Amino acid sequence: MQSNSMNGAESVVRTLVAGDVRVCFANPGTSEIHFVAALDRVKEIRCVLTLFEGVATGAADGYFRMSEVPAATLLHLGPGLANGLANLHNAKKARSGIVNIVGQHATYHIKLDAPLSSDVEAIGHPFSDWIRVSDNSANVANDCAAAIEAARRPPGQIATLILPADTTWGAAAGYAMSNPPSAPPKVSGEAVNIAATALRKDSRSVLILGGGAVRGRALELAGQIAAKTGCELMCEHLNARAERGAGRVHFARIPYVVDQAIEALRDFKEVVLVGAKLPVAFFAYPDRPNVLISENATITQLANIDDDLASALESLASEVNALGTPPRVAYRNPIALPSGKVTLDGIGAVLASLMPTNAIAIDESLTTGRSFWSQMAGANPHDWLNSMGGSVGFGLPLAVGAAIASPDRKVVALEGDGSAMYTLQALWTMAREQLDVTIVIFANRAYRILQGELAALSAATPSSRAIDLLTLNRPNLDWVHLARGHGVEAGRAINLDEFARELGRAFDSTGPYLIELII
Amino acid sequence: MQSNSMNGAESVVRTLVAGDVRVCFANPGTSEIHFVAALDRVKEIRCVLTLFEGVATGAADGYFRMSEVPAATLLHLGPGLANGLANLHNAKKARSGIVNIVGQHATYHIKLDAPLSSDVEAIGHPFSDWIRVSDNSANVANDCAAAIEAARRPPGQIATLILPADTTWGAAAGYAMSNPPSAPPKVSGEAVNIAATALRKDSRSVLILGGGAVRGRALELAGQIAAKTGCELMCEHLNARAERGAGRVHFARIPYVVDQAIEALRDFKEVVLVGAKLPVAFFAYPDRPNVLISENATITQLANIDDDLASALESLASEVNALGTPPRVAYRNPIALPSGKVTLDGIGAVLASLMPTNAIAIDESLTTGRSFWSQMAGANPHDWLNSMGGSVGFGLPLAVGAAIASPDRKVVALEGDGSAMYTLQALWTMAREQLDVTIVIFANRAYRILQGELAALSAATPSSRAIDLLTLNRPNLDWVHLARGHGVEAGRAINLDEFARELGRAFDSTGPYLIELII
Repeated sequence: MQSNSMNGAESVVRTLVAGDVRVCFANPGTSEIHFVAALDRVKEIRCVLTLFEGVATGAADGYFRMSEVPAATLLHLGPGLANGLANLHNAKKARSGIVNIVGQHATYHIKLDAPLSSDVEAIGHPFSDWIRVSDNSANVANDCAAAIEAARRPPGQIATLILPADTTWGAAAGYAMSNPPSAPPKVSGEAVNIAATALRKDSRSVLILGGGAVRGRALELAGQIAAKTGCELMCEHLNARAERGAGRVHFARIPYVVDQAIEALRDFKEVVLVGAKLPVAFFAYPDRPNVLISENATITQLANIDDDLASALESLASEVNALGTPPRVAYRNPIALPSGKVTLDGIGAVLASLMPTNAIAIDESLTTGRSFWSQMAGANPHDWLNSMGGSVGFGLPLAVGAAIASPDRKVVALEGDGSAMYTLQALWTMAREQLDVTIVIFANRAYRILQGELAALSAATPSSRAIDLLTLNRPNLDWVHLARGHGVEAGRAINLDEFARELGRAFDSTGPYLIELII
Repeated sequence: MQSNSMNGAESVVRTLVAGDVRVCFANPGTSEIHFVAALDRVKEIRCVLTLFEGVATGAADGYFRMSEVPAATLLHLGPGLANGLANLHNAKKARSGIVNIVGQHATYHIKLDAPLSSDVEAIGHPFSDWIRVSDNSANVANDCAAAIEAARRPPGQIATLILPADTTWGAAAGYAMSNPPSAPPKVSGEAVNIAATALRKDSRSVLILGGGAVRGRALELAGQIAAKTGCELMCEHLNARAERGAGRVHFARIPYVVDQAIEALRDFKEVVLVGAKLPVAFFAYPDRPNVLISENATITQLANIDDDLASALESLASEVNALGTPPRVAYRNPIALPSGKVTLDGIGAVLASLMPTNAIAIDESLTTGRSFWSQMAGANPHDWLNSMGGSVGFGLPLAVGAAIASPDRKVVALEGDGSAMYTLQALWTMAREQLDVTIVIFANRAYRILQGELAALSAATPSSRAIDLLTLNRPNLDWVHLARGHGVEAGRAINLDEFARELGRAFDSTGPYLIELII
């Protein structure tokens, strides 16, 4: 390839680099081979191989959450895209920006219905905010620039770019520049006034934070408003990235369990939403409401998730004279390291004691971790990342991307065993890239959340048929073997003392280390 | 639950049983919990838990290929369906029948945009032949009966039934009966005459078999026609289930590599397709044709894959006076067990020597197995199953379903290491169900097929950047650890002698056993 005869693939890769997309999580196939060759030539983009597409899309989500810059993916045709969809779902709900690049057969080959033919655009559509099929190698650079712009639209979007093979091997003129992202819109003065009026009323009120309002300047301002007005500060049950720990503004989280959430929200007459949506149940139940706010409450939407949340909170803080009021912060509690038998509270206490400063904690612990949030309030300052779409298998991939975005921070993935199994291939990428990730597998050997749901249905004890559908025993998974099979060092803990010792070993390491904690 | 107050979920499960759907490959979630409770009550359906949805859909494909009866799946909402799509793609291309059951939020909950909300119908549409969203618990039994009928439409279809949670917990009147499948259409006498005329011409001719024409009575008849008319007998490159081995009709396979396929088909002036499609390249290449048949050839479609292929071949055999002509069959070659260093031919010779009679061989060996087909011609009689959609990760799940459909036969999964990684969670289901499956992992620690494609692009040696994207080393996967982590016994072989010894051990076992063969 002469440098003056760029093909479509190279024009796309150079457009990515020009648009500040510097990482590509790739799972390529034959139809993407010209793209691989272009990645080989353009050194300014880091290529990270994953062994399953759901790892690539989840890693791109994690990368964006920590860097606020999109990564690219590289997926193989419709079925490769399909394998990446569950974590694209999670990324879309997290409002992460991803340039999701998918190969397709050559334009003239599609009609022949070869084995791998499928309607790639239809497959990508439900999980994309923006989608385009390139039709010509001369246009792919511009299409890629448009995809970058779409991915960077605040707070972020899934931009799916489909590249038929002939658009990658045909001639291109050069790369294209993408426009920088526009600033998020500011809320109106009227919206601020309505929210201020709500908070000034002599009734119980709550500010519910979502999106970027749970970190940085926005969180600080929310804390000042709460301290001044006496409103409560809460966040949605799931948060893409919340800043927590000692010295940071204290805020509560809406519980997962419907009855608990309703109880927590029952007394508020004024509810002000800042980047948050109306709180609703995760699932509907036949005998429960699915909206969690009292019918008597007045709901005010100060700002949507794609508005400028810090600016909205600054205006509100100014309006209620809160600027400069010291917020209520979380304090470092001296926590004695518990020991002995494994208990859920004991696990949380160990984590809260030992979590390194500035760690990135990724929470896919489900039932095991129900109390982690409150226990971690006084831990060292850290970020706490949830699955925003609720599709399991997000945690290990997210850890890959977060670690690549933040190489100087410890990533701690807290995983239920059932959830971790969906995308365990992420372990290999952690080993290859020597990522500084500690993985804790909570091995209760069950889909515990479903056992609870089944038990709630009926007084009758289920037979072995239903029990077998909700347990991961017979045989037990052996996570130490699974980790070593992927090239990741691992250890097992069966009590809290061993758990603390294993965590210490993991936190002393700078590469991936997996702990199987038997519950 | 009183027996006289059936809910929607139970009405669906009883409809499945009445429609002869006796296995459910399940990966349930909260929205499917009433379905789980119904499975617990109805003992006539076997529930098989998988730890990833692609295992469930691939297993249903394998079950249908061996039994010709659909199984059901049970998947959790849009993202669960998404995880199952790649193997639904493969199953759809294989024309397997599956009753693909997907949970959805309660009808009134969808509009609230809870985390797991998605457009389930749009997600399922590209990979379904039939799709329906139930809207009422009183109708779900009828919807399920319609899904069964769609799945059983010959040769088979993907029928996706979406069940909002309230249709499973609401009241139902009872189960519904599905109509038995209609017989596949017979081809016209005119089509038979045209094909007979083609074969009678004094020019080289070939009968290309596809679908059900590569087994049973249809294959026998094709052999008689070839013996009588002198036409060649070939099959498509990929076959859902071909019957092969000593004593069976001999037929060649169209090669994967474009140049080889063109060469193999070049001289034929008359091409008669029986259940096969026009042979096309798997992928398009800039400098290669993508239709593999010579432009000078006359193409006759005797029968499509959904026609009655045995009847079409019987009519053709009768028309060309071939009925009763002894076909050319494959002979058992006494093969000396090779020994020493691992070579691709040596692997094939070991497999051909030791393959048990009546084994079900599932071929996802890609580059390692390019010569297996010809080497296996004289092995003990066996079935040979390919991925019909070309999406990798089909083999281990298919083995689960094939073993459940055929408990008295040995299943042998021949897997590239890269491909096997996509759905390795299938190993656990094999262990739980104690399935009689031998897994051979060809550990070349590379996406070898892509290395070949990249090498063909350019004379220049790729840098470590591209090499890293196409290799699975650094670190090496350890398949013995991976197997044991899933509860499957395993051994490693580094030469042909060890490979033969490990195969002997596996074939003597009645449960799952994995062999990692280092290449």
